[in-house]
Amino acid sequence: MAKNAIVGQSGGPTSVINSSLAGVFQACQSRGAGTVYGMCNGIAGLLEERVVDLSKTLRSSLEIELLKRTPSSYLGSCRYKLPTPEEDEETYIKLFRILEKLDIGWFFYIGGNDSMDTICKLSDYAKATGSPIRFMGVPKTIDNDLMVTDHTPGYGSAAKYIGVVMKELVRDATVYGTKYVTIVEIMGRNAGWLTAASALARSEDCEGVDMICLPEIPFNVENFIAKVERMQKNSASIVIAVSEGVKLADGRYVCELADDARFVDAFGHKSLTGTARYLANRVAAALDTKTRSIELSTLQRCAAHMTSRTDITEAYQVGGAAVKAASEGHTGEMIALKRLSNDPYQCTTEPHDVHEVANFEKKVPLDWINADHTDMTEKFLAYARPLVQAELTPMFIDGLPRHIYLK
Amino acid sequence: MAKNAIVGQSGGPTSVINSSLAGVFQACQSRGAGTVYGMCNGIAGLLEERVVDLSKTLRSSLEIELLKRTPSSYLGSCRYKLPTPEEDEETYIKLFRILEKLDIGWFFYIGGNDSMDTICKLSDYAKATGSPIRFMGVPKTIDNDLMVTDHTPGYGSAAKYIGVVMKELVRDATVYGTKYVTIVEIMGRNAGWLTAASALARSEDCEGVDMICLPEIPFNVENFIAKVERMQKNSASIVIAVSEGVKLADGRYVCELADDARFVDAFGHKSLTGTARYLANRVAAALDTKTRSIELSTLQRCAAHMTSRTDITEAYQVGGAAVKAASEGHTGEMIALKRLSNDPYQCTTEPHDVHEVANFEKKVPLDWINADHTDMTEKFLAYARPLVQAELTPMFIDGLPRHIYLK
Repeated sequence: MAKNAIVGQSGGPTSVINSSLAGVFQACQSRGAGTVYGMCNGIAGLLEERVVDLSKTLRSSLEIELLKRTPSSYLGSCRYKLPTPEEDEETYIKLFRILEKLDIGWFFYIGGNDSMDTICKLSDYAKATGSPIRFMGVPKTIDNDLMVTDHTPGYGSAAKYIGVVMKELVRDATVYGTKYVTIVEIMGRNAGWLTAASALARSEDCEGVDMICLPEIPFNVENFIAKVERMQKNSASIVIAVSEGVKLADGRYVCELADDARFVDAFGHKSLTGTARYLANRVAAALDTKTRSIELSTLQRCAAHMTSRTDITEAYQVGGAAVKAASEGHTGEMIALKRLSNDPYQCTTEPHDVHEVANFEKKVPLDWINADHTDMTEKFLAYARPLVQAELTPMFIDGLPRHIYLK
Repeated sequence: MAKNAIVGQSGGPTSVINSSLAGVFQACQSRGAGTVYGMCNGIAGLLEERVVDLSKTLRSSLEIELLKRTPSSYLGSCRYKLPTPEEDEETYIKLFRILEKLDIGWFFYIGGNDSMDTICKLSDYAKATGSPIRFMGVPKTIDNDLMVTDHTPGYGSAAKYIGVVMKELVRDATVYGTKYVTIVEIMGRNAGWLTAASALARSEDCEGVDMICLPEIPFNVENFIAKVERMQKNSASIVIAVSEGVKLADGRYVCELADDARFVDAFGHKSLTGTARYLANRVAAALDTKTRSIELSTLQRCAAHMTSRTDITEAYQVGGAAVKAASEGHTGEMIALKRLSNDPYQCTTEPHDVHEVANFEKKVPLDWINADHTDMTEKFLAYARPLVQAELTPMFIDGLPRHIYLK
C-alpha cells in the first residue's frame, strides 16, 4: 500500500482551519504515514503539482502551536469546482497520476460544501477505477451550513468574535444618549448562523442587540423601518444585526435595491455587500435619527486573536479523526461533530458518507427564531453558547500576535 | 475649602477612557476627597444636574477592574461646545451654581481637543470670578492629535488593534494567490496617526501592508491607481491602509468624489465614510483585479478585547496625576505624557497649561513618512512600538468579556 499522505485547504478562510491542518499533520505522523504533503492552493495547485513537504515547513512543536493560532489557510486556498468524470475525465487521469507519483495513500481535504463535493467525486472515481487511495473530508466553514455535523469548525470562533464585538458596539453606540441606529452587516448568504450569534451579546452586563434579521425570514423594508421607529420610542440607541443575505419575499437581495449596487464583480461573482448601508440610508431618510452602518467583512473570518478554544480544539480533533478513519480503511466520508450533551457540553466525532453533505445547505431552524422575527430563542442560545467557551491566547511578540506563514 | 470632586467624559469613546475614570476616582478617594461625582453625558448632563455618586456605582475593586476593561464612556459622553462667557454668561453662572451646590473643589474632564477647550474656558472663568474650584484636563483620544503630550491615552490600544487586524487581513487576503486589492479605511480626519499604525503589521511573520495613505499628504487618485498597478506586478495581493480623511490637493475629501456621497448627515456633521469604497471601485474599474473595501469603523475605538497594557496603565496614571495636581493647587492644566526614553521605554506625566492644547491639532511629522508616500519610516515605528506593548486580558464570563455599565 502507498505510504504517503496529502492534505489541502479549500474555500473561504477561517480562524481555525489551520488547527485542522495541524491535526491532520500530527495524526499522519503518529499513524505511520511517510511524507505528509500539503497542496498549495488546494486541488487547483495540486493539478499544477505545487506541493510542499510539511515536515520541512512545520519543524517543531512551537511552529505547530503557531499554526493553530494563525488565521487563513496556511497552504493557500482555491475555489475550484471539479468537473464530473463524464464532463472531463482528463482532469481525473492527471490528478490520479500526480497522486500515484507522490505515492499517496491518504488524501484529506479541509473545507465546506464545495470541498465535500470534491471528496465525493474523487472517492467515487477511485472506487470506480479500483484506486486504493482513501479520500476523507474535514469540515470547515464559519457559515455553519454543513449537513450531518452538529456544527462546523470555524463557526464557534466567528460566533465568539461576533458576540464580543456586538457587546463592544452596543457600549459604543449608547455613549451620547442620543437617537442612533447602528446596523451591523454579518456574513451569511443563505443561512443566518453567524448573524444569529449576535444574540450572545445579551447578558447581565449588556442590553444586547435590539433586532436580528436572518435570511431565513423574508425581509420587508417598510416593516423593518416601522419596527425601528417603535423600538426607538423606548431606547434612543438601537443596534441591529443583519445578514448580508437578507432577501425580499420575491427573492431579490436587499442589497440589490441600492442605487449603486455593484452587484457583479469583475469575475462575475455576486457581491452581497451594502445591505447595512442601504438600510441605514433608508432609516435615516424615514426617521429623525442618526444612523451608522458597519460591515464586519472579512474580520469575522480571520480574527485569530479572538478564537474559541472549544472551536480550535474541535478543529484539531476532526483533522485527527479523519486520519484515524483513513488509516482504518474509510474513504468517501466526512468527519462530523456529534453533540452528546449541552450541559456539560460533550461532543464526539464520527465519519459520515460525504454524499449526505456535498451540495446541501443547513439553515437555522425556524423555531429558533422568535415569533416577532427580531431575536433568537433560548434553543439557539443553548446550542451556540458551548461553542464559544474558553480562549486560546495568542503568542504576542512585540505587542502583536505571532503567526506562521509559507513564504 | 470645598471637599467634593466631579469627573466627566467627553468626545468620542476609546477602549481605555474608563481606565482614566478609574484613576481619577481612586486617586480622589486616596487624596481625601469627599463624594466623587460623575457627570452623566459630560458637561451637557451636568447642566441638567444629571450626576451620580461614583462610590454608589463602583462598589468594589473587582468593579473597578471591570471598569478598566469596559470600552466606551462609562458615564456617557457629549459633544457640547461651551460658549465663551462673552457669548453666554448665563451658562457659566448656572454651571458654577450647580458646582457650588455639590460643594465641588476639584473638577476633572477626560477628553480631547474640545474637552480641553472646556477646561480652558472654565478655569479662566473661575480665575476671573475668584472661584476656588480647580479644573484639570485628562487627555483622551484615539486620534493622538493633542499638542504637548508625547501621545494620548487611547492611541496605543487603537494602534495595537489596527496592527493586529492588519496582520490578520494580510493573511486572509493572500489566501487564493489571485489578484486582489484590499483597501482598509481607518479613522483620522486630519491627522494620520491611526492609519500609520498599520505599519506595525510588518514583521518576521508578515509581509505587512503594501501602501499607507495619510491625510498629511495630498492624495491623487490617478497616481494611486498607477502605484497599485506597479505593485501588483510583484505581488498578486495588495493590502492598503487609507485614512478616511485623505484629501485632494484642492482640499476636497476623496470620499466627496463618490456619486452616492451622503456627506452631511441629519445633524449637519460631515461624514467621511466611503473613501475605501470609492477607491476600491476606481481600482476595479481601472485594473483587471478583484477589490474589497473594509471600514474598521467604530470597531477601532471600542475593541476593549485587544487593548495595550501600556496604554491602559498610562490612561490610569494620567487620571491619578490630574488629581495629584489639583490637590496641590493646580488648575487650568492638562496632564501630558512625557517620554523619557524609547529603549527601555520610560514615560512620566507632567501638567501643562491647557491653553497650549485646546483647539490645536498635532499631525504626523512629514519625515516619519517615506519619500514615496507609501510607508512609515523607522522614526514612526520607534515611536509607536512601545505604545502597543503587553496586554490586559479581559475577564471572560460564559465565553465573552465582562463589562460594567451604568444602568
